[in-house]
Amino acid sequence: MRDFLPADKTRRERVLAVIRERYRAHGFDEIETPVMEEYSRLHAGIGGDNEKLAFNILKRGLDADAVRAAADEPTLDVAALADLGLRYDLTVPLARFYATHRAQLPSVFRSIQIAPVWRAERPQKGRYRQFMQCDIDIIGDATPRAEAELIVASLDTLDALGLDGGTIRINDRRALDGMLDVFGFAADERPGVLITIDKLDKIGPDGVGAELRERGATPDAVDAFEQFLRRPQTREYNPYGERQIRKALPEGIADEVVAHLVALGETVAAARGDAADIPLVFDPFLVRGMGYYTGTIFELAHPSVTYSLGGGGRYDGMIGRFLGQDVPAVGFSIGFERIVDLVSASVAADAASVVLVHDRDVPVAELLAHKAAFVASGTRVRLEQRTKNLKGLLERAANDGYTAFATVSAGAAPGEVEVKSLG
Amino acid sequence: MRDFLPADKTRRERVLAVIRERYRAHGFDEIETPVMEEYSRLHAGIGGDNEKLAFNILKRGLDADAVRAAADEPTLDVAALADLGLRYDLTVPLARFYATHRAQLPSVFRSIQIAPVWRAERPQKGRYRQFMQCDIDIIGDATPRAEAELIVASLDTLDALGLDGGTIRINDRRALDGMLDVFGFAADERPGVLITIDKLDKIGPDGVGAELRERGATPDAVDAFEQFLRRPQTREYNPYGERQIRKALPEGIADEVVAHLVALGETVAAARGDAADIPLVFDPFLVRGMGYYTGTIFELAHPSVTYSLGGGGRYDGMIGRFLGQDVPAVGFSIGFERIVDLVSASVAADAASVVLVHDRDVPVAELLAHKAAFVASGTRVRLEQRTKNLKGLLERAANDGYTAFATVSAGAAPGEVEVKSLG
Repeated sequence: MRDFLPADKTRRERVLAVIRERYRAHGFDEIETPVMEEYSRLHAGIGGDNEKLAFNILKRGLDADAVRAAADEPTLDVAALADLGLRYDLTVPLARFYATHRAQLPSVFRSIQIAPVWRAERPQKGRYRQFMQCDIDIIGDATPRAEAELIVASLDTLDALGLDGGTIRINDRRALDGMLDVFGFAADERPGVLITIDKLDKIGPDGVGAELRERGATPDAVDAFEQFLRRPQTREYNPYGERQIRKALPEGIADEVVAHLVALGETVAAARGDAADIPLVFDPFLVRGMGYYTGTIFELAHPSVTYSLGGGGRYDGMIGRFLGQDVPAVGFSIGFERIVDLVSASVAADAASVVLVHDRDVPVAELLAHKAAFVASGTRVRLEQRTKNLKGLLERAANDGYTAFATVSAGAAPGEVEVKSLG
Repeated sequence: MRDFLPADKTRRERVLAVIRERYRAHGFDEIETPVMEEYSRLHAGIGGDNEKLAFNILKRGLDADAVRAAADEPTLDVAALADLGLRYDLTVPLARFYATHRAQLPSVFRSIQIAPVWRAERPQKGRYRQFMQCDIDIIGDATPRAEAELIVASLDTLDALGLDGGTIRINDRRALDGMLDVFGFAADERPGVLITIDKLDKIGPDGVGAELRERGATPDAVDAFEQFLRRPQTREYNPYGERQIRKALPEGIADEVVAHLVALGETVAAARGDAADIPLVFDPFLVRGMGYYTGTIFELAHPSVTYSLGGGGRYDGMIGRFLGQDVPAVGFSIGFERIVDLVSASVAADAASVVLVHDRDVPVAELLAHKAAFVASGTRVRLEQRTKNLKGLLERAANDGYTAFATVSAGAAPGEVEVKSLG
């Protein structure tokens, strides 16, 4: 867990403000849920491996007998000690929120959630125990329009952050399932096969074949699949064009799955206005980890980095777990902690700001009058008493985002001090 | 703990954005700390009664033996079960932050913290288990300039929220202590006496006298104090003017305390520019609850409500608890949860927004092209399929902050649909 000093905090809040403003422009509505959810809800099997990483909240008012009883169970009964936990994602809380407030929400509900989540990860580079997630979700729309709205809003947001040039890789869990079916993998070996396919970029077709054999997957299926992987140009396809999508897949994938992908491409093209330059590629081997995805899945790639900057997918089954009635849903999550470091400093700069360096003998009332004059003119202002190391003082102010400075002596008229540029 | 639906969340974020922007303009720098602090730090005696209300985080990887050992202590050893807790205020984390990062901060550090805190309160009206705090603090300045900067920034922020007309009541803990000393209360009865004085507004001088006698406070002291309270016009004094402040206090209060109050008034007057209309009153019976205050204390009153909208004070002793070296500090906390409901809807309104009501047969690609045209023109847009109850649909959109609507049929040209005002 991290403290954020002024320069970092300013940058983070500016980037969040841009994301919030762009998502709102695209008709998404921001909501907020408490950071704590019920223990039982966080451990209902929806959160996958993240459930094990939840921080649990000790029940209030526990007495020694209750604690001893929890310890005396065959396995320690954590649920007897903890009734709440910190959320490890924003999807479980969203499903609970929607089930609770559905009557007050539009029939197609487009939500924004910009909020921290917590996971008790072992400390390692790039993993944080508290980090921000920026999610948009569309609940109540089963058509490809939902995916298209998410993708268009996300690309527009990246543009606004100066991160244009991103690409969305898309696939469909049903296409993956169909493919494994066509090649003859048994249903119970598919989860393991998907884990191996996810490494295709790193280990190549030979590596995938070798690992599948090691796993003991059906030999004929592995042979046929490895041969399919070795075909030239299997990875990237213009997504809108049934012929191209069919060409990227083995024969036998359901028509409705292909039609969904084609419609998605056409819709994004119409919204972006330039059919020749749609930043969408169909990747038939994109997997994504979460078990709850049921249809389209996508991932955001950017030329400046090798890792993904975000992703999401369709999870039509989850809301039903809370509501007792299936409702289609699809979400996209921007990897805020990865993006915030890529955004150029100009996005995070203050409009006008000045450090007012004053002699020790300037009366306090005069100082505050100077400050008030700058604030009234729309300039952010910090008071600093002159020190021997003026250079160091100004450097630190520049690092904190200040762009100008002025020196003030006793008796100067407010609003009439000379302002000089910093650096 | 509360969920926030779109209309409420929008309002909250707008109010927070105004507060953040104004505080930044006044030269305060925003920081952020993790929501969890070490259990031992949250229970070090600084947090007063709030320590008992902390949510505690269960240690990860506890086994049954460790839990049983905690239960077998003479009193249940919570510290053996919990190593972290959710913060109950932003002051303890700020002191820890400052002690950790002092070398990277300006010599006078003006911090902003806008963040939630948690207290395990019993459910009752107006009390929340998760709520926002908006704190500004100045660390490293022992002069009245610090109080003046806090007060001027806070009043300006209230002005920007349309809540002008507020008044800051000020007092000084040293003046209170001096007063109790003059009247002859013993040192050990003072905490109880202060609790009773805090009720003066509700129970009047007679009530205070009666309660102090019930408490068994020194009889002569109670008599003298009650007589002092009965003097006419003891409560409100123009704060800058030594004569007026002296008149409000019994004889024998230290010169430096009076001088600090006088300088504070003069400084705020200079910054606000209108000496005749300074919204500051000296209230010699203002107490404020927290035990850590060491000097000036203040509270924000507003004509629209009977309760306080914020307050703060000087706590010169606390940073030293973490740093091992005393550093002066003073803070002001706006009661965000109270203020957010008073702010008029205009602060929370979107600039331009439209609900696009479409027939069922409009192709998805056309819809997204319409949406993109509005977004490109700076208009927030929500797509809604036409329903039988069009009126209800538009009412809900208006409630969510939309100001206009347009209807779209198949074949219409993007950017050329007619927009009508909502309501």
